[in-house]
Amino acid sequence: MIVDDEGFALLEEDECFDLLGQSSIGRVGVTIGAIPAIFPVNFSLIDRNIFFFTAPGTKFSAALRNAVVAFEVDHVDPIYHEGWSVLVAGKSHEVADEALLRRVKRSPLEPWAPGERSHVVCIDPDFVSGRSILHTSGVRASDR
Amino acid sequence: MIVDDEGFALLEEDECFDLLGQSSIGRVGVTIGAIPAIFPVNFSLIDRNIFFFTAPGTKFSAALRNAVVAFEVDHVDPIYHEGWSVLVAGKSHEVADEALLRRVKRSPLEPWAPGERSHVVCIDPDFVSGRSILHTSGVRASDR
Repeated sequence: MIVDDEGFALLEEDECFDLLGQSSIGRVGVTIGAIPAIFPVNFSLIDRNIFFFTAPGTKFSAALRNAVVAFEVDHVDPIYHEGWSVLVAGKSHEVADEALLRRVKRSPLEPWAPGERSHVVCIDPDFVSGRSILHTSGVRASDR
Repeated sequence: MIVDDEGFALLEEDECFDLLGQSSIGRVGVTIGAIPAIFPVNFSLIDRNIFFFTAPGTKFSAALRNAVVAFEVDHVDPIYHEGWSVLVAGKSHEVADEALLRRVKRSPLEPWAPGERSHVVCIDPDFVSGRSILHTSGVRASDR
């Protein structure tokens, strides 16, 4: 088991993509006017790329135009203090290719937010990492 | 009801702090070596400041040293497509004041991650915003 500098067990890349593929809500980290921001989105993973809808003409969609962004999914159990998180960094861009747009719109990717959400944004991961907290050693944080 | 440029209903500042106070897991957005990153943390809200533990000497704790960071909590219902998110931006710093450290350590703030987590980080919000999606208009995303 490989452990990172914070004591988390590192996940293999394939495990990270499996967890991304099983998730539907993720958080996008962008910079809007030099201020960092995080927004939840529902997304689909297709061919190891992340796709989600945005509304055209918004600050969020402008911030996603060819920017390097963060994308994160996690599951944290608040009772047992177990969980995992997967972090992606990559360039985001609006999807213009008609065949790909049709494919994204066929995926189970329904915008949960109101208003027109006709833009499809893709994040192409340059960097993927995952961490898990499993208290298999028998020592829970609550035992310390 | 005030609506933002994406069609979300905006929350009042007091509602945002109420939701922060009711939450225990949030996500911190930082920049590590020019790459944006998001990490889940468990946190406490004390006097409208956000507190969480980190491990000393890590890249994450270094990235939190007097940096402007994003902090986000949300609740999204994947079935009814309803939810809310609260976004904070503010400067983060390590807590050194002994009285405040004792107060933070008395709060229900237990590190869920392994390893030594002796550093307490505070985010002092400069900017707080919240958005909700409630389909009270009778139109759900799934009806469109």
